[in-house]
Amino acid sequence: MLLINGRYGHCIEAADRGFQYGDGVFTTLPVLAGHPIFLPLHLMRLAGDCGRLGIPFPGDSVLEPEVRQLCRVKSHGVLKIQITRGAGPRGYRPIADTQPTRVLSLQEHVSHSCQASEQGVRVKLCRSRLGVNPALAGIKHMNRLEQILARSEWDDVLIREGLMLDNAGALIEGTMSNVFLVVGGRLVTPDVSECGVAGVMRSVVLALAEAEGIGTEVRRVAVDELGAASEVFLTNSLIRIWPVVALDNLAWTVGPVTQRLHRQLVARIRAETGGTV
Amino acid sequence: MLLINGRYGHCIEAADRGFQYGDGVFTTLPVLAGHPIFLPLHLMRLAGDCGRLGIPFPGDSVLEPEVRQLCRVKSHGVLKIQITRGAGPRGYRPIADTQPTRVLSLQEHVSHSCQASEQGVRVKLCRSRLGVNPALAGIKHMNRLEQILARSEWDDVLIREGLMLDNAGALIEGTMSNVFLVVGGRLVTPDVSECGVAGVMRSVVLALAEAEGIGTEVRRVAVDELGAASEVFLTNSLIRIWPVVALDNLAWTVGPVTQRLHRQLVARIRAETGGTV
Repeated sequence: MLLINGRYGHCIEAADRGFQYGDGVFTTLPVLAGHPIFLPLHLMRLAGDCGRLGIPFPGDSVLEPEVRQLCRVKSHGVLKIQITRGAGPRGYRPIADTQPTRVLSLQEHVSHSCQASEQGVRVKLCRSRLGVNPALAGIKHMNRLEQILARSEWDDVLIREGLMLDNAGALIEGTMSNVFLVVGGRLVTPDVSECGVAGVMRSVVLALAEAEGIGTEVRRVAVDELGAASEVFLTNSLIRIWPVVALDNLAWTVGPVTQRLHRQLVARIRAETGGTV
Repeated sequence: MLLINGRYGHCIEAADRGFQYGDGVFTTLPVLAGHPIFLPLHLMRLAGDCGRLGIPFPGDSVLEPEVRQLCRVKSHGVLKIQITRGAGPRGYRPIADTQPTRVLSLQEHVSHSCQASEQGVRVKLCRSRLGVNPALAGIKHMNRLEQILARSEWDDVLIREGLMLDNAGALIEGTMSNVFLVVGGRLVTPDVSECGVAGVMRSVVLALAEAEGIGTEVRRVAVDELGAASEVFLTNSLIRIWPVVALDNLAWTVGPVTQRLHRQLVARIRAETGGTV
Protein backbone atom coordinates (compact mmCIF):
# COMPACT_ATOMS: atom_id res chain seq x y z
CA MET A 1 0.00 0.00 0.00
CA LEU A 2 1.56 3.22 -1.21
CA LEU A 3 0.70 6.88 -0.78
CA ILE A 4 2.60 9.04 -3.28
CA ASN A 5 2.21 12.74 -2.60
CA GLY A 6 -1.02 11.92 -0.79
CA ARG A 7 -2.56 9.67 -3.45
CA TYR A 8 -2.71 5.91 -3.64
CA GLY A 9 -0.53 4.65 -6.45
CA HIS A 10 2.58 2.67 -7.18
CA CYS A 11 4.46 4.70 -9.78
CA ILE A 12 6.80 7.64 -9.67
CA GLU A 13 8.05 9.86 -12.47
CA ALA A 14 11.23 8.52 -14.08
CA ALA A 15 12.43 12.14 -13.97
CA ASP A 16 12.27 12.13 -10.17
CA ARG A 17 15.70 12.87 -8.80
CA GLY A 18 15.22 9.99 -6.39
CA PHE A 19 15.33 7.68 -9.40
CA GLN A 20 17.91 9.66 -11.36
CA TYR A 21 20.49 10.15 -8.61
CA GLY A 22 19.26 8.64 -5.35
CA ASP A 23 18.62 12.26 -4.35
CA GLY A 24 16.49 11.69 -1.28
CA VAL A 25 16.24 10.36 2.26
CA PHE A 26 14.14 7.75 4.02
CA THR A 27 13.21 6.18 7.30
CA THR A 28 11.62 2.86 8.22
CA LEU A 29 9.52 2.03 11.27
CA PRO A 30 7.16 -0.66 12.51
CA VAL A 31 3.41 -0.18 12.81
CA LEU A 32 1.95 -2.18 15.68
CA ALA A 33 -1.77 -2.30 16.47
CA GLY A 34 -2.22 0.85 14.39
CA HIS A 35 0.59 2.72 16.16
CA PRO A 36 3.60 3.96 14.17
CA ILE A 37 6.33 3.35 16.74
CA PHE A 38 8.47 6.39 17.65
CA LEU A 39 6.96 8.36 14.74
CA PRO A 40 7.98 11.78 16.13
CA LEU A 41 11.62 10.64 16.24
CA HIS A 42 11.42 9.37 12.67
CA LEU A 43 9.87 12.62 11.44
CA MET A 44 12.53 14.60 13.27
CA ARG A 45 15.21 12.50 11.61
CA LEU A 46 13.66 13.00 8.18
CA ALA A 47 13.47 16.75 8.74
CA GLY A 48 17.10 16.86 9.84
CA ASP A 49 18.31 14.75 6.92
CA CYS A 50 16.31 16.82 4.41
CA GLY A 51 17.82 19.94 5.93
CA ARG A 52 21.34 18.67 5.49
CA LEU A 53 20.74 17.91 1.80
CA GLY A 54 18.77 21.11 1.18
CA ILE A 55 15.57 19.21 0.33
CA PRO A 56 12.45 21.12 1.44
CA PHE A 57 10.86 19.04 4.23
CA PRO A 58 7.12 18.56 3.60
CA GLY A 59 6.41 19.02 7.32
CA ASP A 60 4.92 16.92 10.09
CA SER A 61 1.53 18.49 9.39
CA VAL A 62 1.56 16.85 5.95
CA LEU A 63 3.29 13.58 6.77
CA GLU A 64 1.64 12.67 10.04
CA PRO A 65 -1.96 12.61 8.73
CA GLU A 66 -0.78 10.49 5.79
CA VAL A 67 0.88 8.04 8.17
CA ARG A 68 -2.31 7.84 10.26
CA GLN A 69 -4.36 7.30 7.10
CA LEU A 70 -2.26 4.25 6.19
CA CYS A 71 -2.29 2.92 9.75
CA ARG A 72 -6.09 2.98 9.80
CA VAL A 73 -6.20 0.77 6.71
CA LYS A 74 -3.47 -1.61 7.83
CA SER A 75 -2.68 -1.86 11.50
CA HIS A 76 0.48 -4.00 11.36
CA GLY A 77 3.40 -3.63 9.03
CA VAL A 78 6.57 -1.88 8.04
CA LEU A 79 6.21 1.78 7.16
CA LYS A 80 8.82 3.38 4.93
CA ILE A 81 8.77 7.11 4.30
CA GLN A 82 10.89 8.47 1.44
CA ILE A 83 11.38 12.15 0.67
CA THR A 84 13.12 12.99 -2.60
CA ARG A 85 14.06 16.32 -4.14
CA GLY A 86 11.33 15.71 -6.74
CA ALA A 87 11.31 15.75 -10.52
CA GLY A 88 13.62 18.16 -12.24
CA PRO A 89 15.51 18.87 -15.44
CA ARG A 90 18.69 16.99 -16.37
CA GLY A 91 21.80 17.78 -14.35
CA TYR A 92 23.03 17.43 -10.78
CA ARG A 93 22.26 21.01 -9.82
CA PRO A 94 19.17 21.22 -7.60
CA ILE A 95 16.62 23.66 -8.98
CA ALA A 96 15.12 26.03 -6.45
CA ASP A 97 11.44 25.50 -7.29
CA THR A 98 11.25 21.70 -7.47
CA GLN A 99 8.59 20.16 -5.25
CA PRO A 100 9.80 17.30 -3.09
CA THR A 101 8.22 13.89 -3.62
CA ARG A 102 6.97 11.90 -0.65
CA VAL A 103 6.36 8.18 -0.82
CA LEU A 104 4.83 6.32 2.12
CA SER A 105 4.66 2.57 1.84
CA LEU A 106 3.14 0.24 4.39
CA GLN A 107 4.05 -3.37 3.76
CA GLU A 108 3.65 -6.69 5.45
CA HIS A 109 6.09 -7.05 8.31
CA VAL A 110 8.31 -10.06 7.68
CA SER A 111 8.44 -10.88 11.36
CA HIS A 112 11.90 -11.32 12.79
CA SER A 113 11.61 -14.26 15.15
CA CYS A 114 11.87 -13.70 18.88
CA GLN A 115 14.64 -16.26 18.71
CA ALA A 116 17.06 -13.70 17.29
CA SER A 117 16.28 -11.22 20.08
CA GLU A 118 16.52 -13.82 22.82
CA GLN A 119 19.23 -16.18 21.67
CA GLY A 120 21.25 -13.79 19.56
CA VAL A 121 22.55 -13.86 16.01
CA ARG A 122 25.67 -14.78 14.12
CA VAL A 123 27.27 -12.02 12.02
CA LYS A 124 30.14 -11.70 9.58
CA LEU A 125 32.72 -9.04 8.86
CA CYS A 126 32.15 -7.59 5.38
CA ARG A 127 35.02 -7.03 2.96
CA SER A 128 33.13 -4.04 1.51
CA ARG A 129 34.19 -0.84 3.20
CA LEU A 130 32.37 2.43 3.80
CA GLY A 131 33.79 5.49 2.07
CA VAL A 132 34.36 8.52 4.27
CA ASN A 133 32.23 11.57 3.52
CA PRO A 134 31.40 13.86 6.47
CA ALA A 135 28.88 15.81 4.35
CA LEU A 136 26.74 12.67 3.94
CA ALA A 137 27.64 10.83 7.15
CA GLY A 138 24.80 10.10 9.54
CA ILE A 139 22.11 10.72 6.91
CA LYS A 140 19.80 7.88 5.93
CA HIS A 141 19.93 8.83 2.27
CA MET A 142 18.96 6.90 -0.84
CA ASN A 143 22.54 6.25 -2.02
CA ARG A 144 22.80 2.71 -0.73
CA LEU A 145 25.17 0.91 -3.10
CA GLU A 146 27.78 0.38 -0.38
CA GLN A 147 25.24 -1.49 1.72
CA ILE A 148 24.03 -3.47 -1.30
CA LEU A 149 27.56 -4.58 -2.15
CA ALA A 150 28.15 -5.56 1.48
CA ARG A 151 24.83 -7.43 1.75
CA SER A 152 25.70 -9.28 -1.47
CA GLU A 153 28.68 -10.88 0.21
CA TRP A 154 26.78 -13.75 1.81
CA ASP A 155 23.66 -15.83 1.42
CA ASP A 156 24.05 -18.14 4.42
CA VAL A 157 20.69 -17.71 6.19
CA LEU A 158 22.36 -18.41 9.53
CA ILE A 159 24.34 -15.18 9.19
CA ARG A 160 21.90 -12.42 9.98
CA GLU A 161 24.01 -9.32 9.50
CA GLY A 162 27.38 -8.10 8.25
CA LEU A 163 29.54 -5.57 10.07
CA MET A 164 31.19 -2.83 8.04
CA LEU A 165 34.42 -0.91 8.56
CA ASP A 166 35.55 2.38 7.09
CA ASN A 167 38.65 2.61 4.89
CA ALA A 168 40.85 3.12 7.93
CA GLY A 169 39.59 -0.08 9.56
CA ALA A 170 37.31 1.46 12.18
CA LEU A 171 34.09 -0.40 12.97
CA ILE A 172 31.09 1.69 11.85
CA GLU A 173 27.84 -0.28 11.63
CA GLY A 174 26.00 -3.24 10.16
CA THR A 175 24.63 -3.20 6.60
CA MET A 176 21.14 -2.41 7.98
CA SER A 177 21.80 -1.76 11.66
CA ASN A 178 23.90 0.11 14.17
CA VAL A 179 26.28 -1.74 16.42
CA PHE A 180 26.92 -1.45 20.16
CA LEU A 181 29.66 -2.94 22.34
CA VAL A 182 29.80 -3.27 26.09
CA VAL A 183 33.37 -2.56 27.18
CA GLY A 184 34.24 -2.41 30.86
CA GLY A 185 30.55 -2.08 31.71
CA ARG A 186 30.12 0.97 29.47
CA LEU A 187 28.06 1.10 26.31
CA VAL A 188 30.12 2.03 23.25
CA THR A 189 28.87 2.75 19.74
CA PRO A 190 30.84 4.04 16.76
CA ASP A 191 30.85 7.71 15.91
CA VAL A 192 29.04 8.23 12.58
CA SER A 193 30.30 11.70 11.75
CA GLU A 194 32.54 10.48 8.90
CA CYS A 195 30.42 7.65 7.53
CA GLY A 196 27.50 5.46 8.58
CA VAL A 197 23.88 6.11 9.50
CA ALA A 198 22.67 7.66 12.76
CA GLY A 199 19.74 5.29 13.28
CA VAL A 200 16.66 6.30 15.24
CA MET A 201 16.92 3.13 17.33
CA ARG A 202 20.57 3.95 18.01
CA SER A 203 19.50 7.24 19.59
CA VAL A 204 16.68 5.54 21.52
CA VAL A 205 19.08 2.95 22.95
CA LEU A 206 21.64 5.61 23.88
CA ALA A 207 18.89 7.53 25.70
CA LEU A 208 17.65 4.39 27.46
CA ALA A 209 21.18 3.59 28.62
CA GLU A 210 21.62 7.07 30.06
CA ALA A 211 18.26 6.79 31.83
CA GLU A 212 19.43 3.46 33.28
CA GLY A 213 22.65 4.97 34.55
CA ILE A 214 24.78 3.02 32.07
CA GLY A 215 27.76 5.05 30.89
CA THR A 216 27.82 5.66 27.13
CA GLU A 217 30.60 6.49 24.69
CA VAL A 218 30.16 7.56 21.07
CA ARG A 219 33.61 7.39 19.56
CA ARG A 220 35.93 5.79 17.05
CA VAL A 221 35.91 2.02 17.60
CA ALA A 222 38.78 -0.06 16.25
CA VAL A 223 37.59 -3.42 14.96
CA ASP A 224 39.99 -5.12 17.39
CA GLU A 225 37.88 -3.82 20.27
CA LEU A 226 35.27 -6.45 19.45
CA GLY A 227 37.62 -8.97 21.03
CA ALA A 228 37.59 -7.00 24.26
CA ALA A 229 33.82 -6.46 24.38
CA SER A 230 31.83 -8.42 26.94
CA GLU A 231 28.63 -7.95 24.91
CA VAL A 232 27.83 -6.90 21.36
CA PHE A 233 24.43 -6.10 19.91
CA LEU A 234 22.76 -4.60 16.84
CA THR A 235 19.88 -2.17 16.63
CA ASN A 236 17.42 -0.90 14.10
CA SER A 237 13.79 0.17 14.28
CA LEU A 238 12.48 -3.17 13.03
CA ILE A 239 14.77 -5.68 14.72
CA ARG A 240 15.00 -3.51 17.86
CA ILE A 241 17.93 -5.23 19.61
CA TRP A 242 19.70 -8.32 18.37
CA PRO A 243 22.45 -9.66 20.62
CA VAL A 244 25.46 -10.82 18.62
CA VAL A 245 26.71 -14.23 19.74
CA ALA A 246 29.25 -15.10 17.05
CA LEU A 247 31.60 -13.44 14.55
CA ASP A 248 34.21 -15.72 12.98
CA ASN A 249 36.10 -17.15 15.96
CA LEU A 250 34.71 -14.63 18.47
CA ALA A 251 31.77 -15.58 20.65
CA TRP A 252 29.63 -13.76 23.17
CA THR A 253 26.70 -14.68 25.36
CA VAL A 254 23.55 -12.60 25.61
CA GLY A 255 24.73 -10.37 28.42
CA PRO A 256 23.07 -8.43 31.22
CA VAL A 257 23.42 -4.95 29.70
CA THR A 258 21.87 -6.12 26.43
CA GLN A 259 19.03 -7.85 28.27
CA ARG A 260 18.37 -4.85 30.48
CA LEU A 261 18.23 -2.45 27.54
CA HIS A 262 16.03 -4.86 25.60
CA ARG A 263 13.54 -5.07 28.49
CA GLN A 264 13.43 -1.28 28.75
CA LEU A 265 12.95 -0.96 25.02
CA VAL A 266 10.10 -3.48 24.93
CA ALA A 267 8.42 -1.55 27.75
CA ARG A 268 8.83 1.73 25.86
CA ILE A 269 7.34 0.24 22.70
CA ARG A 270 4.50 -1.28 24.71
CA ALA A 271 3.81 2.16 26.15
CA GLU A 272 3.76 3.61 22.62
CA THR A 273 0.96 1.23 21.70
CA GLY A 274 -1.06 2.03 24.80
CA GLY A 275 -0.13 -1.33 26.29
CA THR A 276 -1.81 -3.33 23.53
CA VAL A 277 1.33 -4.98 22.14
CA MET B 1 10.47 10.83 -24.78
CA LEU B 2 10.96 7.76 -22.64
CA LEU B 3 11.14 4.05 -23.37
CA ILE B 4 10.76 2.00 -20.19
CA ASN B 5 11.45 -1.68 -20.74
CA GLY B 6 10.59 -1.15 -24.39
CA ARG B 7 7.35 0.75 -23.90
CA TYR B 8 6.66 4.46 -24.10
CA GLY B 9 5.83 5.82 -20.67
CA HIS B 10 7.07 8.10 -17.96
CA CYS B 11 6.60 6.17 -14.72
CA ILE B 12 8.56 3.55 -12.90
CA GLU B 13 7.54 1.34 -10.00
CA ALA B 14 8.25 2.95 -6.63
CA ALA B 15 9.52 -0.49 -5.60
CA ASP B 16 12.27 -0.29 -8.24
CA ARG B 17 15.63 -0.56 -6.54
CA GLY B 18 16.78 2.37 -8.64
CA PHE B 19 14.33 4.51 -6.69
CA GLN B 20 14.78 2.76 -3.36
CA TYR B 21 18.57 2.71 -3.23
CA GLY B 22 20.05 4.24 -6.38
CA ASP B 23 20.80 0.63 -7.32
CA GLY B 24 21.64 1.10 -10.99
CA VAL B 25 23.96 2.58 -13.59
CA PHE B 26 23.62 5.01 -16.45
CA THR B 27 25.28 6.62 -19.41
CA THR B 28 24.54 9.79 -21.38
CA LEU B 29 25.35 10.51 -25.01
CA PRO B 30 24.42 12.97 -27.75
CA VAL B 31 22.25 12.06 -30.71
CA LEU B 32 23.22 14.05 -33.81
CA ALA B 33 21.38 13.76 -37.13
CA GLY B 34 19.89 10.48 -35.92
CA HIS B 35 23.26 9.05 -34.88
CA PRO B 36 23.88 8.05 -31.25
CA ILE B 37 27.52 9.12 -30.93
CA PHE B 38 29.95 6.40 -29.79
CA LEU B 39 27.01 4.12 -28.89
CA PRO B 40 29.13 0.93 -28.86
CA LEU B 41 31.44 2.48 -26.27
CA HIS B 42 28.49 3.54 -24.13
CA LEU B 43 26.94 0.08 -24.30
CA MET B 44 30.29 -1.48 -23.41
CA ARG B 45 30.54 0.83 -20.41
CA LEU B 46 27.01 -0.03 -19.27
CA ALA B 47 27.76 -3.74 -19.59
CA GLY B 48 30.96 -3.37 -17.59
CA ASP B 49 29.32 -1.28 -14.87
CA CYS B 50 26.38 -3.70 -14.60
CA GLY B 51 28.86 -6.54 -14.31
CA ARG B 52 30.68 -4.90 -11.44
CA LEU B 53 27.44 -4.40 -9.51
CA GLY B 54 26.07 -7.83 -10.39
CA ILE B 55 23.12 -6.37 -12.33
CA PRO B 56 22.13 -8.57 -15.30
CA PHE B 57 22.94 -6.57 -18.44
CA PRO B 58 19.97 -6.55 -20.85
CA GLY B 59 22.35 -6.90 -23.80
CA ASP B 60 23.19 -4.85 -26.87
CA SER B 61 20.64 -6.84 -28.85
CA VAL B 62 17.89 -5.40 -26.64
CA LEU B 63 19.25 -1.91 -26.07
CA GLU B 64 20.53 -1.02 -29.53
CA PRO B 65 17.18 -1.44 -31.35
CA GLU B 66 15.50 0.65 -28.64
CA VAL B 67 18.10 3.38 -29.08
CA ARG B 68 17.56 3.31 -32.88
CA GLN B 69 13.79 3.45 -32.36
CA LEU B 70 14.11 6.67 -30.35
CA CYS B 71 16.61 8.18 -32.80
CA ARG B 72 14.17 7.67 -35.67
CA VAL B 73 11.52 9.69 -33.81
CA LYS B 74 13.86 12.43 -32.64
CA SER B 75 17.12 12.95 -34.49
CA HIS B 76 18.81 15.44 -32.15
CA GLY B 77 19.02 15.31 -28.42
CA VAL B 78 20.56 13.88 -25.28
CA LEU B 79 20.09 10.17 -24.78
CA LYS B 80 20.31 8.77 -21.27
CA ILE B 81 20.25 5.04 -20.68
CA GLN B 82 19.62 3.79 -17.14
CA ILE B 83 19.80 0.15 -16.06
CA THR B 84 18.59 -0.65 -12.56
CA ARG B 85 18.44 -3.93 -10.67
CA GLY B 86 14.65 -3.78 -11.02
CA ALA B 87 11.81 -4.01 -8.53
CA GLY B 88 12.30 -6.23 -5.54
CA PRO B 89 11.24 -6.87 -1.98
CA ARG B 90 12.39 -4.70 0.91
CA GLY B 91 16.03 -5.01 1.97
CA TYR B 92 19.45 -4.33 0.50
CA ARG B 93 20.09 -7.90 -0.53
CA PRO B 94 19.76 -8.36 -4.29
CA ILE B 95 17.34 -11.15 -5.15
CA ALA B 96 18.52 -13.54 -7.84
CA ASP B 97 15.44 -13.49 -10.05
CA THR B 98 14.73 -9.74 -10.28
CA GLN B 99 14.48 -8.43 -13.82
CA PRO B 100 16.57 -5.33 -14.49
CA THR B 101 14.73 -2.16 -15.50
CA ARG B 102 15.92 -0.20 -18.52
CA VAL B 103 14.95 3.42 -19.04
CA LEU B 104 15.95 5.23 -22.23
CA SER B 105 15.18 8.93 -22.38
CA LEU B 106 15.84 11.19 -25.34
CA GLN B 107 15.54 14.84 -24.42
CA GLU B 108 16.16 18.19 -26.01
CA HIS B 109 19.85 18.99 -26.09
CA VAL B 110 20.48 22.19 -24.19
CA SER B 111 23.20 23.21 -26.58
CA HIS B 112 26.48 24.12 -24.98
CA SER B 113 27.72 27.10 -26.93
CA CYS B 114 30.76 26.78 -29.16
CA GLN B 115 32.13 29.66 -27.13
CA ALA B 116 32.94 27.31 -24.24
CA SER B 117 34.81 24.92 -26.54
CA GLU B 118 36.71 27.67 -28.29
CA GLN B 119 37.35 30.28 -25.64
CA GLY B 120 37.37 28.03 -22.58
CA VAL B 121 35.57 28.06 -19.26
CA ARG B 122 36.07 29.24 -15.72
CA VAL B 123 35.87 26.59 -12.99
CA LYS B 124 35.95 26.48 -9.20
CA LEU B 125 37.41 24.10 -6.66
CA CYS B 126 34.59 22.43 -4.70
CA ARG B 127 34.73 22.08 -0.94
CA SER B 128 32.76 18.81 -1.22
CA ARG B 129 35.10 15.85 -1.37
CA LEU B 130 34.73 12.42 -2.96
CA GLY B 131 34.73 9.47 -0.58
CA VAL B 132 37.09 6.64 -1.45
CA ASN B 133 35.49 3.33 -2.38
CA PRO B 134 37.42 1.13 -4.85
CA ALA B 135 34.42 -1.21 -5.22
CA LEU B 136 32.35 1.62 -6.71
CA ALA B 137 35.11 3.72 -8.27
CA GLY B 138 34.97 4.24 -12.01
CA ILE B 139 31.32 3.16 -12.23
CA LYS B 140 28.74 5.65 -13.48
CA HIS B 141 26.20 4.54 -10.91
CA MET B 142 23.02 6.17 -9.68
CA ASN B 143 24.40 7.18 -6.25
CA ARG B 144 25.12 10.78 -7.10
CA LEU B 145 24.68 12.73 -3.86
CA GLU B 146 28.35 13.69 -3.73
CA GLN B 147 28.04 15.36 -7.13
CA ILE B 148 24.78 17.03 -6.13
CA LEU B 149 26.33 18.51 -2.99
CA ALA B 150 29.30 19.74 -5.01
CA ARG B 151 27.12 21.22 -7.75
CA SER B 152 25.05 23.00 -5.09
CA GLU B 153 28.08 25.01 -4.04
CA TRP B 154 27.69 27.72 -6.69
CA ASP B 155 25.13 29.40 -8.89
CA ASP B 156 27.36 31.88 -10.69
CA VAL B 157 26.54 31.16 -14.36
CA LEU B 158 30.05 32.23 -15.36
CA ILE B 159 31.46 29.23 -13.49
CA ARG B 160 30.79 26.24 -15.68
CA GLU B 161 32.16 23.40 -13.60
CA GLY B 162 33.56 22.50 -10.19
CA LEU B 163 36.63 20.36 -9.65
CA MET B 164 36.51 17.72 -6.93
CA LEU B 165 39.23 16.23 -4.76
CA ASP B 166 39.26 13.02 -2.76
CA ASN B 167 39.66 13.05 1.03
CA ALA B 168 43.45 12.95 0.69
CA GLY B 169 43.46 16.06 -1.51
CA ALA B 170 44.09 14.41 -4.87
CA LEU B 171 42.37 15.92 -7.90
CA ILE B 172 39.83 13.44 -9.28
CA GLU B 173 37.31 14.99 -11.67
CA GLY B 174 34.66 17.63 -12.24
CA THR B 175 31.12 17.24 -10.91
CA MET B 176 29.95 16.12 -14.38
CA SER B 177 33.22 15.75 -16.29
CA ASN B 178 36.68 14.26 -16.28
CA VAL B 179 39.71 16.50 -16.09
CA PHE B 180 42.97 16.48 -18.07
CA LEU B 181 46.21 18.39 -17.54
CA VAL B 182 49.06 18.93 -19.92
CA VAL B 183 52.29 18.71 -17.94
CA GLY B 184 55.64 18.84 -19.73
CA GLY B 185 53.90 18.14 -23.03
CA ARG B 186 52.30 14.95 -21.70
CA LEU B 187 48.59 14.42 -21.15
CA VAL B 188 47.77 13.58 -17.54
CA THR B 189 44.42 12.53 -16.11
CA PRO B 190 43.62 11.31 -12.60
CA ASP B 191 43.40 7.64 -11.82
CA VAL B 192 39.79 6.74 -10.96
CA SER B 193 40.40 3.41 -9.27
CA GLU B 194 39.59 4.72 -5.78
CA CYS B 195 36.83 7.21 -6.61
CA GLY B 196 35.48 9.09 -9.60
CA VAL B 197 33.87 8.06 -12.88
CA ALA B 198 35.69 6.58 -15.85
CA GLY B 199 33.91 8.60 -18.52
CA VAL B 200 33.47 7.33 -22.06
CA MET B 201 34.83 10.63 -23.43
CA ARG B 202 37.81 10.28 -21.10
CA SER B 203 38.71 6.97 -22.76
CA VAL B 204 38.10 8.42 -26.24
CA VAL B 205 40.44 11.34 -25.54
CA LEU B 206 43.12 9.06 -24.09
CA ALA B 207 42.92 6.93 -27.24
CA LEU B 208 43.06 9.99 -29.51
CA ALA B 209 46.12 11.24 -27.68
CA GLU B 210 47.89 7.94 -28.12
CA ALA B 211 47.01 7.90 -31.82
CA GLU B 212 48.46 11.41 -32.09
CA GLY B 213 51.68 10.35 -30.41
CA ILE B 214 51.00 12.40 -27.31
CA GLY B 215 52.30 10.68 -24.19
CA THR B 216 49.60 9.91 -21.62
CA GLU B 217 49.67 9.29 -17.89
CA VAL B 218 46.81 8.00 -15.77
CA ARG B 219 47.93 8.46 -12.18
CA ARG B 220 47.37 10.21 -8.88
CA VAL B 221 47.31 13.98 -9.46
CA ALA B 222 47.93 16.31 -6.53
CA VAL B 223 45.80 19.44 -6.74
CA ASP B 224 48.99 21.52 -6.66
CA GLU B 225 49.93 20.15 -10.07
CA LEU B 226 47.29 22.39 -11.61
CA GLY B 227 49.72 25.26 -11.05
CA ALA B 228 52.37 23.47 -13.11
CA ALA B 229 50.04 22.49 -15.96
CA SER B 230 50.42 24.34 -19.26
CA GLU B 231 46.88 23.39 -20.29
CA VAL B 232 43.82 22.06 -18.48
CA PHE B 233 40.61 20.79 -20.03
CA LEU B 234 37.40 18.96 -19.16
CA THR B 235 35.63 16.19 -21.04
CA ASN B 236 32.28 14.50 -21.14
CA SER B 237 30.17 13.03 -23.91
CA LEU B 238 27.99 16.13 -24.24
CA ILE B 239 30.47 18.97 -23.79
CA ARG B 240 33.21 17.01 -25.57
CA ILE B 241 36.23 19.15 -24.65
CA TRP B 242 36.09 22.38 -22.65
CA PRO B 243 39.42 24.15 -22.17
CA VAL B 244 39.77 25.54 -18.66
CA VAL B 245 41.03 29.13 -18.63
CA ALA B 246 40.56 30.14 -15.01
CA LEU B 247 40.43 28.65 -11.51
CA ASP B 248 40.70 31.12 -8.65
CA ASN B 249 43.98 32.92 -9.28
CA LEU B 250 45.24 30.40 -11.84
CA ALA B 251 44.85 31.11 -15.54
CA TRP B 252 45.54 29.18 -18.71
CA THR B 253 45.18 29.86 -22.40
CA VAL B 254 43.54 27.45 -24.80
CA GLY B 255 46.67 25.51 -25.66
CA PRO B 256 47.91 23.53 -28.64
CA VAL B 257 47.42 20.05 -27.18
CA THR B 258 43.81 20.85 -26.24
CA GLN B 259 43.13 22.33 -29.69
CA ARG B 260 44.71 19.40 -31.47
CA LEU B 261 42.70 16.84 -29.51
CA HIS B 262 39.54 18.88 -30.01
CA ARG B 263 40.05 18.94 -33.79
CA GLN B 264 40.60 15.17 -33.83
CA LEU B 265 37.54 14.61 -31.71
CA VAL B 266 35.32 16.77 -33.91
CA ALA B 267 36.55 14.80 -36.91
CA ARG B 268 35.78 11.51 -35.20
CA ILE B 269 32.28 12.63 -34.29
CA ARG B 270 31.75 13.90 -37.83
CA ALA B 271 32.76 10.48 -39.13
CA GLU B 272 30.26 8.86 -36.75
CA THR B 273 27.47 10.85 -38.35
CA GLY B 274 28.57 9.99 -41.87
CA GLY B 275 29.90 13.50 -42.33
CA THR B 276 26.51 15.13 -41.87
CA VAL B 277 27.36 17.08 -38.70
